[in-house]
Order: sequence, then C-alpha cells, then structure tokens
Amino acid sequence: MSYSALTQHFQQQYHLQHIAAMCGWDQATMMPAGGNQARSEAMSTLAVLSHQQLQAPQLAQWFSAAQAESLTPEQQVSLAVMQRQWRDATMLPSDLVGAFSLAGSRCEHAWRSLRPANDWAGFLPLFEEVLNLSRQVAAARSEALGLSYYDSLLEQFEPGMRSATLDPLFNDVKQWLPGLITQVQAKQSAEQVQLPQGPFATSHQKALGLEVMKLLGFDFNHGRLDVSVHPFCGGVSEDVRLTTRYDENDVAQALMGVIHETGHARYEQSLPAQWRSLPVGQARSMGIHESQSLFFEMQLARHPAFIAKLAPLLSHHFGEQTAFSSDNLAKLYTRVQPGLIRVDADELTYPAHVMLRYEIERDLIEGKLQAKDLPERWDNLMQQYLGLSTKGNYKDGCMQDIHWTDGSFGYFPSYTLGALYAAQQAKAIQTELGTFDHLISTDLSSIFSWLQRNIWQHASLLETDALITQACGQPLNACAFKLHLEQRYLGA
Amino acid sequence: MSYSALTQHFQQQYHLQHIAAMCGWDQATMMPAGGNQARSEAMSTLAVLSHQQLQAPQLAQWFSAAQAESLTPEQQVSLAVMQRQWRDATMLPSDLVGAFSLAGSRCEHAWRSLRPANDWAGFLPLFEEVLNLSRQVAAARSEALGLSYYDSLLEQFEPGMRSATLDPLFNDVKQWLPGLITQVQAKQSAEQVQLPQGPFATSHQKALGLEVMKLLGFDFNHGRLDVSVHPFCGGVSEDVRLTTRYDENDVAQALMGVIHETGHARYEQSLPAQWRSLPVGQARSMGIHESQSLFFEMQLARHPAFIAKLAPLLSHHFGEQTAFSSDNLAKLYTRVQPGLIRVDADELTYPAHVMLRYEIERDLIEGKLQAKDLPERWDNLMQQYLGLSTKGNYKDGCMQDIHWTDGSFGYFPSYTLGALYAAQQAKAIQTELGTFDHLISTDLSSIFSWLQRNIWQHASLLETDALITQACGQPLNACAFKLHLEQRYLGA
Repeated sequence: MSYSALTQHFQQQYHLQHIAAMCGWDQATMMPAGGNQARSEAMSTLAVLSHQQLQAPQLAQWFSAAQAESLTPEQQVSLAVMQRQWRDATMLPSDLVGAFSLAGSRCEHAWRSLRPANDWAGFLPLFEEVLNLSRQVAAARSEALGLSYYDSLLEQFEPGMRSATLDPLFNDVKQWLPGLITQVQAKQSAEQVQLPQGPFATSHQKALGLEVMKLLGFDFNHGRLDVSVHPFCGGVSEDVRLTTRYDENDVAQALMGVIHETGHARYEQSLPAQWRSLPVGQARSMGIHESQSLFFEMQLARHPAFIAKLAPLLSHHFGEQTAFSSDNLAKLYTRVQPGLIRVDADELTYPAHVMLRYEIERDLIEGKLQAKDLPERWDNLMQQYLGLSTKGNYKDGCMQDIHWTDGSFGYFPSYTLGALYAAQQAKAIQTELGTFDHLISTDLSSIFSWLQRNIWQHASLLETDALITQACGQPLNACAFKLHLEQRYLGA
Repeated sequence: MSYSALTQHFQQQYHLQHIAAMCGWDQATMMPAGGNQARSEAMSTLAVLSHQQLQAPQLAQWFSAAQAESLTPEQQVSLAVMQRQWRDATMLPSDLVGAFSLAGSRCEHAWRSLRPANDWAGFLPLFEEVLNLSRQVAAARSEALGLSYYDSLLEQFEPGMRSATLDPLFNDVKQWLPGLITQVQAKQSAEQVQLPQGPFATSHQKALGLEVMKLLGFDFNHGRLDVSVHPFCGGVSEDVRLTTRYDENDVAQALMGVIHETGHARYEQSLPAQWRSLPVGQARSMGIHESQSLFFEMQLARHPAFIAKLAPLLSHHFGEQTAFSSDNLAKLYTRVQPGLIRVDADELTYPAHVMLRYEIERDLIEGKLQAKDLPERWDNLMQQYLGLSTKGNYKDGCMQDIHWTDGSFGYFPSYTLGALYAAQQAKAIQTELGTFDHLISTDLSSIFSWLQRNIWQHASLLETDALITQACGQPLNACAFKLHLEQRYLGA
C-alpha cells in the first residue's frame, strides 16, 4: 500500500529531524566553541541527506497511488500534510539547502560573540550571505507556490497565512496600541512598585523554575531544562529540551522565560501519540505554538490568581521580602515600559517589536531594503513605534535576535499571531468554564484539559482557521487581545 | 578526479559519524529515560542511511579509477584506508548485518538483567545465537580477506594483527606474569597503606578532574567532561566528550578514570587537522588508542613523580590527610590484588584477564569451544592465572563483560596490546629525553610533544608495526612492559 510506504518513509524523516534537533540543542547548550566548525559541517551534511531522502524518486508515484487508496478522513489529512512537506522539500535544489544551512549555522555562531561586541561590521557580511541565500530560497518557493517572495517564506511557519491578512490585522493593532501604551504608562506612573532585592542565586532560580514547570504539568521523563544564551524549546515530543538563562539580579526573566517555554513544551509533549512520527502529528504552526507559550506566560502566569501561587515560592527560595507580596508582584509583572529588547518587552509593547520586524523582513526579502541599510530603518521604526533610539547600538537594535542569523525570515509574525490566538483561547475558556480567578485557584488542570481537547490533541489534523474557529467560536481577530489588554492594564 | 570524489564522499561519512557520536553521548549523559525509545529508533535510521551512503554504487568505479590517478604517497595510503573501510561495509550480506545486529541487541538487553540474576541458563541460548551469527560474519570476512575466522574479526579492531603474532607474545607473558604477581603480593603484604577518608564531594571531585585534565593538556575549547554510568571517551576529534562517574567514598576511581580518558582524548584532539575528516586521519587502531589511555593512566599518573603532583591537589580539594602523602598514594595506586572483575583489576593482574578472554573467544570463533562449555573453561583459566574460583558465579565470571553480548569478538587483545605499546613508548621517551622522574617534575610537555611527533600526528598514515618501530626503535614486544612492572612493583 502506497500510503503505508509513505508513512514509513516519513517516519525516517522524523528520525532525522530528531537527530538534527538534538545536535542543534547540543550546539546551543553543551558544545565547546571550538567544535562549531565541525558541527556546522556535520549538520549541513545531515540536512542534505535528509533533504535527499525526502526527494526520493518513488515518492511522486506513491503520492499519486495513495490518492486512490481507501483512507480514513484522518489518513487523508495526513497524506495532504506529507504532500505539503514533500512539496516544500522538492521545490529547492539540494545544493541550495546545504549552502543555506551552512551559512545560517556560521552566522548564528558568529553572532553569539559579535552581538556582545556590538560588531555590526563583522556581522554584516555573514548576514548578507544568509539574506542572499534566503532570497534564493524565497525565489524558488515563490515560483513553485505562486506566492510573493515573503508569503512563500511565511507559509513555512504559518501555513495559509498571507501578508494580505496580516496587513489589515496589524494596521488595526497599530491604530490603538500606541495610544493604549501612553494611557497605561500614565496610569502606572502613579503606582508604587517595589523591586525584589537580589542577588538571586542561579541554583535557587533553577530549583524554582523546575518547581513551576512541575506545577504546569511538564513531564520530566520526556524532557529537561538547561541554559543557553537565547532560550528556546527544542528537541522532539518524546524528549523536549527547554532552555533558559539566569541573571542573578533579576528573578523574573528566567522564571517567566521558563513558563513561556513550558507552554511550548506541553503542546509538544501532548501531541497525539498515534500520529507522533508523521507530519500530521506535528504542531499546527508557529503561531499556534506561540499561542501556547504566550497563554502560559501572559494569560496564565501574569494573572493575579497565578501570581498568588508564585509569591510563596519566591519567598521560599529567596527569603521573605515585602516585594514578594502578590499585589506587588502583580503590578511588577504587568509593568509597561517601552524598551529596546524584544525578549524583555512587556505584553503591551511586544507587538510593536514584532510589527517593526515584520515590516523590515518583508522588505529585505522582497528586495526593497538592503542589509546595509537595516540599522537605519530599524532606528526609524523604533523611534516611530516606541520613541526610542538605537543609533550605533546594534546589539540592542537589529542584532538582538537570533532569527535572521539563521535565515528564519517569516517567523516574527507568529509571535503576535500567538498573542491574538492566546487571548481568543483565554476568552473561550472563561466563557465555557468560568473565570481564571476561579479556575486558577481551584482547578488549574481544567485549563490544561481544555487546551488538550481543543488545541493539543488536534496537532495538524485541522487547518489553523478551522482549529481556532472550532476552539474559540470565532476566526482570528484582535478583539479578544485588545479587550484583555484594556482589562488587565486599565482595569476597564 | 575520482580520488577527490571519494574524499568528498568519505567526508560525508565522517559528518554522519559526528552526528551519531553526539547523539550517542547525549543518550548516555543527558537524555531523560522516556526519550530512549525514540532515540534508539532515530539512531537506527541514521545507521541505516550511513551504511547505505557507504555502499553507494559509484564507489567501486571511483576506487578503480583512483588507482590510476597521480597521487602523493600520503594520498595513496588515504585511498587504501578508505578502501578498507568500504570493503568492510560491503563484504557482508545485508540480511546477515541485520540478523547480527538484532541478535546482539537482544542478547545485550537481556544480559543487563540476567547478569545480576546470575542466570547462565537464561543467557546461554541468546549468547549461542550471537556466537552463531558472529561465526557467520567471521566466515564471510574470512572468505573475503583470506584470513582465519578469528583473525578476520581481530582485523576490525587491530588492522594487521594476527593470532600468529599474539600467541607467542601472550605465551611469553604467561611465563612470567603469575610468578611476578605472587612475588609482588608477598612484597606488598609487609607494606602499610592508608586509605583516604571520605566522603569526597562530587563537586570537588569534578573540580579536581578538570584541574588534572588541564595539567595533562586537554583542550577545553574542543571538548568537555560529563557524567555517565559507564565512562567513555566519545564525540569527535574537534569536540571530544569525556565522561566519568563519581563515588563519594572513593576519589581514585573518578580521578584515574578521568586521566585514562584524557589519554584517549589527547590522541583524538591531536590527530592531524589536514586529514581529520578522512579515514586515514582517524586513530590507528584500538590497541594504539588504548596505549594512549594506559600511557596516561599507568605509565604517567601512577608514576611517583606524577603522584607528587596529585598529592597537593587532593589535599587542596579534600583537606589535609596523612593518606594524601605522596608515599602513601604511590603505594595505594600500585596495590596489587587478584580479583574476579576485569574493569576493577590493577595494572599487574589486568593482562591475565585479557589473555583468558583471548584464548576463549578465539576458540569459540574457531569452533573449538562450545558456548555451553564456556563457564568451565573460564573457571579453569581463572584458577590457572589468578588462583580464583568462579564456579557457579557466572555474573563475576564469564557473564561480566558487555563485549561478547553484542558480538564484539576480537576486541579484548587491544587492552593488553595497549599496555605493551604504552610501556614501549615510555621506555623510548626515557631513553631519548631522560627519566620520567626528571621529565614529569620539570618538563611534562616534552612527554606530550614526543607523543605528538611519534604517535598522534601519524593517525592512520603508518601501519601499526611501522608506527611502533619508528617511534620506539623496536617492533611490538613484551620486554619493556615486563621491565616496567618489575621496576615499579619489585623496585628491581
């Protein structure tokens, strides 16, 4: 049976992705610096072989024969998702795949030392090479898919999403966000907030993180927590590798970071076991993935009822402080302060960081902006959206993110899509089950069960639109997000 | 050019070995238990693809065309080593490879619970299956290589080594070793030795290990130290991953283990960079590899002059103790005590364990000994060589090692070959450069430079015989080893 032959073939792909994910995790967490060149070459070869495996000549015949086979509706979706992955792989020549992987690996590694050195001149040629290859990838995808260059990259992370959908959505947010930020800042300027006093020993921060992961249902038999410069959730569903970074002067960064990554992790760990090794069993999209991390970090962990659970844990690990009162922590964790760094941004200013990157990366990929002009454009938009200057400050400006260093253009919109989806899910849960005030204090697991039923168990069996509409009763929109922000930040 | 096409092809093999080595390291050091099933499947797929890559149909043509190309002498050696690796991969029918691997996995897996249960009857049929398939592998290799069954297996680990060389060598050792053990035991029975008092905190043991690795020249930019149940030296030359295990009641185990693995590591890290990704750039053989670990652990680290360096480090990390005097440590680290377990054996009794295994595995593979008669033969030889009985004690007798459970027949001689080579190297260094007493206290790095010039930089560019004769002025023999043992243990 061709469908069955295809599933075996795609299971091998899954195995190679497992291997690549683990070597990528090791590169970011464990590998000594001197090992990087060899690692990059090895991973490039793996990427090429994996890509060749996906391009095996018999697949075309299997796909056409499988269409005629008697398949369950779920198998039909599975077949379509395999076909999309196969189509994605076959539209790029192997040498481009190898060159792209190698350039990305090199640039990303160099970035780890060039960024702290604020070395834009050292970074630019490496970045230009990545951008150049990314545009070649976009050209090939665009040709095959009949999409614009940028949409063809966006499709990799958000299947079905287009600039034509993002533009009005983001334009909507741009209408009300700057005003809301100003209003909230005015309101908060009258508030007294106490900063907890450090130092917060790394070992205690780690113990606290592990405790909170446990509270949030992370399965330590199928995952672990480590340290990396740029925190991420990697590995595979059966073995999820979270990372964070510790600052001994700031306990919130690692704590909220770990909660964020735990959202990603629970989605991964809860994908349906029977589809695990097939494309249809993978996470639906990056936006849906981000909706889970932001649900955990923003909707859940910064809710006063959850902060009431965190407060005694903080006191336990770092000693009693008046700053650890639930009231104070709630104010602190919803403090709005426009800043230069996306990953440090609060919930309210975060979308501004994303919209800025969306506009820039779209123009870079469409050829409307040159790499060398990136710092100036960045500075202009930061001035416009958040009133801040990044002139000459590359490390806190256009060199701050890992995404572009390895060619992940088209990824950034997922963050704000995730925030919108998360708000829609939180609204749906509260409509169905009761307020978060009540659920968090009495029945946290009912929230996870809702996510399990409505999001996690569906993996890629539903299109994103259908998944969200079925779960939340409405398609993607910014209303729930706006309402959530107004309620949380203005008490409206 | 075919030679050049071959080098590219074998570089890909090297990259896949890199990936496999890192995932294997992760499995032993980092992976949560629940990830094991997925990891095993992923690594099995990688092994299959790697094997397929090595069997690519164009290789036969490339090899024959490359013979006619104008190659440097070193390229000719490189070509021959690639060809040997390719020949090894292609000489076995793939159904035999599959059956052998499956039987090995099954037997090894069962052994993990059958050994502690001392269940020889349960083990025997599984072991018989492995032995039967190993003999089929030996038959196929024997046919292809024109060697005896056993020599064809030995060739996998010690290229060029034959039973006809091993037999007189080991017969020589058997002549004098049992008497020497008796003499040394008599001498040591009069000695007072103090055991250092624990507990020895793991964190301090780790710090000590790192310090000693640094002293021994380990390059931390291309490697790291971690923990695993069964210590090993893994990874790749560019990124060597050592492991050890800590026992808070015994500081010597991890310390000597780390030194041993550092010997392997320095060899790996010092292989010539220009040949790194080709078979000819890899370590010469398992015996030469073991000679480096044993040189570090036995020749160097248990030498009184090196122990004089270790003593203050021990006091520094664990506090002053009279047991940490150089004199006492020197006695402690050269204590001889015949025992049942090979991996716990001292320098003097270790060869007895190896020779016993060599005789048995050779007869098993040549069909002169039946699996069912193994325990009796084991017991006879243990009585003869070490005066100990293993009657009915299978778990500390013939079931103690992992090697035979997965069919690694032909590996054991490497351990004692390594000890002989190490002694020859130590003797040559002292003849050329001065006594270890002098070199270790004043110019440790001159010892490493000698190893670099004479062993490390040659990788597989020289045959083992030529490598040793060129380095030590004599071919393989047991004289230096005997002399070393007599001097160290009898003060002769």
